[in-house]
Amino acid sequence: MTVFEGEGTGRYLDNRKEWSSLKLPFSHSKIAKIEIIVPDERVQIIHENGKTGCPGDGIICISEILEVVKVKTLKPEEII
Amino acid sequence: MTVFEGEGTGRYLDNRKEWSSLKLPFSHSKIAKIEIIVPDERVQIIHENGKTGCPGDGIICISEILEVVKVKTLKPEEII
Amino acid sequence: MTVFEGEGTGRYLDNRKEWSSLKLPFSHSKIAKIEIIVPDERVQIIHENGKTGCPGDGIICISEILEVVKVKTLKPEEII
Repeated sequence: MTVFEGEGTGRYLDNRKEWSSLKLPFSHSKIAKIEIIVPDERVQIIHENGKTGCPGDGIICISEILEVVKVKTLKPEEII
Repeated sequence: MTVFEGEGTGRYLDNRKEWSSLKLPFSHSKIAKIEIIVPDERVQIIHENGKTGCPGDGIICISEILEVVKVKTLKPEEII
Repeated sequence: MTVFEGEGTGRYLDNRKEWSSLKLPFSHSKIAKIEIIVPDERVQIIHENGKTGCPGDGIICISEILEVVKVKTLKPEEII
């Protein structure tokens, strides 16, 4: 699991605070992007563990990973 | 739409400024990555609204999103 | 090639240092994500040039890019 910080627009903006690192010329808020690589059957893990029920919970975008390999060996890495 | 800051190499580097947060051992510049999820027919939205015509406008990489769902409900989110 | 900084969990955590920018409520470490767009036959470039042989070398996740175009022209960009 990896987390990245970014800035974005969306339906539910947290623009209560004054801040701007990228100086985007429109209303936006700080967001976190979480990347998780899981087998198909575990896609709902974020829903089960990550929802607050409040506006701003965000969306899950699912795309396909063709292959996961270790840098060191180029052998397949088991995703659990 | 989400924007992430990073550092990269490319054909058009803005290396006029002295800076390095990641201390990469090669010539690189600060870049912004914009992630937009759109229906097929709106892929050219970046071209229409984001080009400056100058070197460094960058590239668009298109990959497929299989599904977009709300974290809160796991129901499909309408992408507009 | 583009590099992004993030924070993540994994099998090999570098949690020797005290730091937390995102204040994640679990053990995690600073990571770098490298995005490279290459033709199929060059996928092992990271393995060949980036492995240290030490724990923490990380994984390569391969996903498909459907198309790469220039922002300025919307014409296909040659990936080398």
